[in-house]
Order: sequence, then structure tokens, then C-alpha cells
Amino acid sequence: MDILELRPVAEALFSSIRELSYDGVGMTRESYGAGESATADLLRDFALQQGLEVHCDRAANLQFCLPDERSEKQVIWCGSHLDSVPQGGNFDGLAGVIAGLLCLMAQKKSACPSPLPLQVIGFRGEESAWFGKAYMGSGALFGLLSDEDLELQQRNSGETLASCMQNVGADIEAIRNQAVLFDKSRVRAFLELHIEQGPVMVARKLPLAVVSGIRGNIRHNNIQCIGGAGHSGAVPRWLRRDAMFAVADLIMRLDEHWSELLERGTDLVVTIGMLSTNPAEHAVSRIPGQVKFSFEVRSKSIDTLEAFYQLMRAECTAISRERQVNFAFDRRLLSNPATMDSQLCSLFSRICTRQGCSFEVIPSGAGHDASLFANAGIPSGMLFIRNQNGSHNPEEAMEMDDFLLGVDVLNQTIHEIA
Amino acid sequence: MDILELRPVAEALFSSIRELSYDGVGMTRESYGAGESATADLLRDFALQQGLEVHCDRAANLQFCLPDERSEKQVIWCGSHLDSVPQGGNFDGLAGVIAGLLCLMAQKKSACPSPLPLQVIGFRGEESAWFGKAYMGSGALFGLLSDEDLELQQRNSGETLASCMQNVGADIEAIRNQAVLFDKSRVRAFLELHIEQGPVMVARKLPLAVVSGIRGNIRHNNIQCIGGAGHSGAVPRWLRRDAMFAVADLIMRLDEHWSELLERGTDLVVTIGMLSTNPAEHAVSRIPGQVKFSFEVRSKSIDTLEAFYQLMRAECTAISRERQVNFAFDRRLLSNPATMDSQLCSLFSRICTRQGCSFEVIPSGAGHDASLFANAGIPSGMLFIRNQNGSHNPEEAMEMDDFLLGVDVLNQTIHEIA
Repeated sequence: MDILELRPVAEALFSSIRELSYDGVGMTRESYGAGESATADLLRDFALQQGLEVHCDRAANLQFCLPDERSEKQVIWCGSHLDSVPQGGNFDGLAGVIAGLLCLMAQKKSACPSPLPLQVIGFRGEESAWFGKAYMGSGALFGLLSDEDLELQQRNSGETLASCMQNVGADIEAIRNQAVLFDKSRVRAFLELHIEQGPVMVARKLPLAVVSGIRGNIRHNNIQCIGGAGHSGAVPRWLRRDAMFAVADLIMRLDEHWSELLERGTDLVVTIGMLSTNPAEHAVSRIPGQVKFSFEVRSKSIDTLEAFYQLMRAECTAISRERQVNFAFDRRLLSNPATMDSQLCSLFSRICTRQGCSFEVIPSGAGHDASLFANAGIPSGMLFIRNQNGSHNPEEAMEMDDFLLGVDVLNQTIHEIA
Repeated sequence: MDILELRPVAEALFSSIRELSYDGVGMTRESYGAGESATADLLRDFALQQGLEVHCDRAANLQFCLPDERSEKQVIWCGSHLDSVPQGGNFDGLAGVIAGLLCLMAQKKSACPSPLPLQVIGFRGEESAWFGKAYMGSGALFGLLSDEDLELQQRNSGETLASCMQNVGADIEAIRNQAVLFDKSRVRAFLELHIEQGPVMVARKLPLAVVSGIRGNIRHNNIQCIGGAGHSGAVPRWLRRDAMFAVADLIMRLDEHWSELLERGTDLVVTIGMLSTNPAEHAVSRIPGQVKFSFEVRSKSIDTLEAFYQLMRAECTAISRERQVNFAFDRRLLSNPATMDSQLCSLFSRICTRQGCSFEVIPSGAGHDASLFANAGIPSGMLFIRNQNGSHNPEEAMEMDDFLLGVDVLNQTIHEIA
């Protein structure tokens, strides 16, 4: 069958899931929380109706396959994540899960399975917004969650990651023991279709892109700058230990370094995504004694990540001296950059060309579950779909035509991997 | 009687009120809220036990006087405020109310009233921390609260100022009509004892200071910087509209202007007391699309205030252009600088000298209720008491010896005003 015939199915799934996860502003599908579970439930019910097999893996991710297909031979994994950031968009993650499901449906309807069986996966817990850590669902499968990770707290409820994972059925003892929860040697390839989360493809008028690699990042979820609170009218500048001016100083120094590095052609983005004076004590007329903020640097190069991180620490030391404040750092989190498999990239590219579809090979600025597979030695490939208005916001706007073009390429690729 | 004999009374009052307003970190006496009302109740009960008369004025401030003293002749008003900032100290405001009460007790015990009767006042609502506006209790007396002011919301409950004032017994209709709620012509002088809220007197080893004038200020409680949210990994620097980098840029530009103006001898302090990315949507991996912050500039000179304010607005315009963001301003609030009465300053100074007490004449960096009296043409005077560790924080530490020295000078001054 022509996979494009499944367009109404895709539209209905996106629409139903939009409805169940709309929070009044955007889509909210909390990792290991209500929105993510509701999405998983809807997809499971749908897949069962279609005659597909569905099971939860030991990390509580959702897996789909054709009936009677769980044999011993090698399989192709394909999928993406179910969760979203708070007030996010509908397509980030979900597009890749639905794409995989459509490929599986096409195999079922045409009774024409791929040479290697297709296993579709909907990961839980990809977004770092909820627990301050990304790739929790795929990381658990690889035995990569530490005790410290499992004690991370949900941003709103304060419940630990361990407890939230257990609540949705994950085998928390195995995860705590850092057991690898699947047979890596059986996975011939990992494929992920995902919306582009930046503005490049729109600017270049390309519906599809083949991803060459994924930027890594170094993060702190919570750095504290401690100064001295005081009455805003009564403390002269030279006696102030203003935590807000100190952090503003840090941000501007990082901005200058960033500009300079870009001029030298370095791949780099820097973000202070969360920052706040202390709501329990701040006031218009009080010099802030405390500011909390997050830090993130991303690059394709691990050397650039390390160098910029050290630069940030050095500036904090300099500012501590100049402005009489202290910086306290929580745990440093590292996600390694990853390289996509060159043969899979070539295969994607050949099929795009064959379909007459204009595309480009670009790196991914955002992180993806695929990076864990690639760094574990599993050949991995990613396809990007053009998307208006960026992601991690309610205005994500993937065109259904672009999506189906991507699903078509993905489907053909799956049939050509031996 | 020697007013120093009242030391145990002062100690007991400070201690009881510390106890009732301690929140686990510092003192919290919310304007028109629980802590302020509990303080008022305790002082009323105490004063009644001492045989003093107590009444609430039409703005719900607490007033104390000797029995049968409410005649038609001129009176001296003396007092300060009952409220505190969140997690503040015990002495800011309260010291001046207790100082006045001790003077009144001394008159009662010695049966030796001052030539002009003494009226002691405990103002409500002096701190701007709760509703974003200062001098609400004294401002109401002068008919200075606008409809807009009365609609300001309490920072935690969201209840309007009008409703909170009415709940504690203020005549909200008269206040809404901007009626002057007392006979200004009857007030011969307004005297306020207050802790110094900065580090100058400690540095100079002076227990007392005579205040020459009070800094005014221009404020915004809530400026919004609107940029564009986006995925932190996927949007390159040149396409970012990062609200956090924009506001950090603004703060550093203000810091530079401030440094330069100080080198020219300008009296100026600048504070961004409250700042936050949007907690409903911020994340480590999301470019902040929105930052809210407060702005305050203080100076003895109205010209400096206006000039710095225009500078801030000009920098916002420049940053809007350079960083593709917008700034939205709430209502600008102005508190005029005020000059203390020169004859009262001289009288304070003469009495300090007579007592052999080292002192200095200094301006007040912080605002005080006294500024409204001074700007309404009522001769006003202020005495500062040395105080360790600044104010608007739990570590305020006024020495009882210094306080009683101040009360002694205040008491003698009251007896010498004719």
C-alpha cells in the first residue's frame, strides 16, 4: 500500500493527542506524569485496535510490533518520545512515534513486513524540563541512570524520578542496578524521525534533512549566586554585594566570549533558561542576596563544551572577587555529542534523491534519544522534518505534507536495511 | 523620671513582638495583614494597661496619647511604622513606635507632659514590599492614594489594597475621595526615630545621626522584557531573541552609567530587586521568551532621578533594536525627595551635643513616612540609630544602649518644642 493513504490516520492521532494534552496555552505531557501517560494510553488503545502488539519495556517505554514478530533475529528500532516540555508544541517527539506507527500499520495492512522486523518505540522522559535531566527513558534502557539521577525531583510536585518511574510500571530495582534492559546486539539500527527544532530548514526551504550528528551539552540545573541582601536605599554601590548585578555581569561576559568564538567558526550555543531572585524574600526595595539560575552550553565538539565550561567557571571566580559574591554549583551534567551512522545517512540520502525530494545533511542542535544509541555503538540515523516557529513552544507548526514525505522516506529506508 | 529606667519595658516589647512576627527565618509583619495587626494589637493592649489612650485614625493607623489630651491646641506627632518586609528585621519601623511610646510613658509616670501634647503614631503600610507602594498608611492620611493605588494587589493573596485596608477598619470611602484625614494645621512637628538602614554609622562609629533629608525614588514594580522563546540547542545566536540576555545587557549598561555618575559625585543607587524568567514555561533547554523585573533608582536630587530614569528608558530602546525584544512598563511610581526642617535639625543637634553624644548630620538613603509630612509643609525631623547588618533582612542588630540614647534625645526634643 501507499503509506500516503494513512494521512487521515496521522491527522486524527495528532488531533486527539493535542486535545488531551492541551493545558490552555500549549501542550503539557509531563515525563512520567499525566500528559505523557494519557498519550501512551491513547496510542496503545489505537495500536491494539489496529491489530498490532503492544508492550511496555522494563523502563516503562511503550513498544509496538507486528503480531508474532518477537523472534530471535535482528530488529530495527524506530521511534521517538512521548513527553513534551511545559506549554510545549504537539509535534516534538510525538511526530517520530506516529511516523513509526504508520510504517508498522502499512506493513500490517499490506501484509508486507520489512526484511528485518520493525519495533516501534515511544520513549518516556526525554525532556529535561521536568526533572532536570534528559533521555531518562532511553537512558534507563542502557543502564545509564545513577542513584543521583533517580533522586532528582519533579519540578512541581517534588516527587523523585525513581518514584515517578515506578508509578508508571518501570522495573526500578533493575534500573537502580544500572542493568542494560534490552539485548543491544539484537538492534541492527535505531531510526528517529523528528521535527527540526530550529529555523534553518524553513530559512532554506527544505522539507527534509538528514542528520549528520547531534550536539552534546554541559548543564547545571541550579547555580546559586550568594551575595548580601540589604536595603536598596541605604547601601552605597561600593558596599553592595548584589547577586543580581553579579549574575548579569556573568551573562554579559559569556555573551562576549560566545560572540568571539562564533567569529572563529566554533559551533556553540549558550542559554540561561531559568533565573530568579528568591521569591520568598525579594522586593523592589531590597538588594537581592540570592539569585538562582541554570546554565547550558551546547556544541558538536566535546572540546568546545569543556573549554567553554571552564571559561564560565573562571568568570564566576573573577566576579566573586570583584563583586564580593559566591557561586555554588549543583551537579554538572554532560550529554556527549553523537555522530550518526554514515551508511544510514547515505541510505536516507539516496532514498530522498530517488523520491525527488530536496534535502540537506545538517547537524542537530537539539539532543535526541538517538544520541544514546549512537554512543552505545548501535548504527543510528535521524530524519528532520521542517517545522515553523521553533519548538518547545505552543507555536510549533509542522506541515502534514512535509511529515508524510518524511514518513515515506523512513518507511522505504526500513524496507532497505538488511 | 529618667527615661533610661524604661529599658526593661523596651526590651520586653521588642522581644514579644519579635516572637509574634517570627516566620522561621525573619520577621514578617505584612502591611494590612496578620503580622502588622498582631503588632498593633499587642501595642494597644500594652498602652491601655499603662493608662494611655489609644485610637485608630481613619486610615487604620494606631495613635496613642495621654488621657484627656485631645484638645484643640497644637500637638507634636512622633512615630514610625508597624509593618516589615517579608523575612525582615525586628527594628525597622518598630523602634520609632516604641521610642514614641516610651516618651509618652515617661510623661505619664512623671506627671510632666510636654509643653505641646505628644501624639504617638504607629503607621500601617509603610513598606512597598507587599503592594508595590510605600507610605500607604501615612499617604492615606494625606489623601494621596489614587484609585490605581487602591487596586494594587497583595503579593501573595492578590487581594486589593482597598480591601485589605477596609478589613482593618480604614474609612475606605474617605480614602478613595482623597480626603485629608487629619487637621494638618494642628501638627506643629513630625518626629521619627528610625534605625539607619545602611552601613555608614557603623563604619563611622556613631550611635546617633540627625537626618538632613530623605532620598526620593522612581520605581517600576514590573517591567516585562518580551523576546522569543525557542529550543536552546537549535536556534543560533543571530536568530535569538533572548529576553534574559537582553535584561542582563540592560543591567550592565545601568551599572556602567551608575559608576560614571558616582565618579562625578552624583547621589545615586540603582536596584533590580526582583527578576524572574517565567516559571510557567521556563526550562534549562528553553531560550527565555519573557523576563519580569523591578526597577528602582534613588537620589536626593529629583533632577538626578529624572535623568537616570530617562537613561534607563533610552537603553531599553537601544537594546530592543539590537536584540529584537520589547520592553513593556507598568505604572511609573515617584516618591519625591524631602528636606528635614532646619530648626528641628538644629534642636536635635544641640541636645546631642549637650548630652555629650557624638553624632553626624547625614541624608537618609531609605524613604520614610517623615518625607510625606515634610513635603506637606509640616516641620519634620528624624533621628537615626546605629544598626548592624543593614535592614530589610533578619540580621538587623540595633544595640539597646544606642536606642535608649536616641530615645533620650527624642524625649528632650519633644519637651523643648514650643
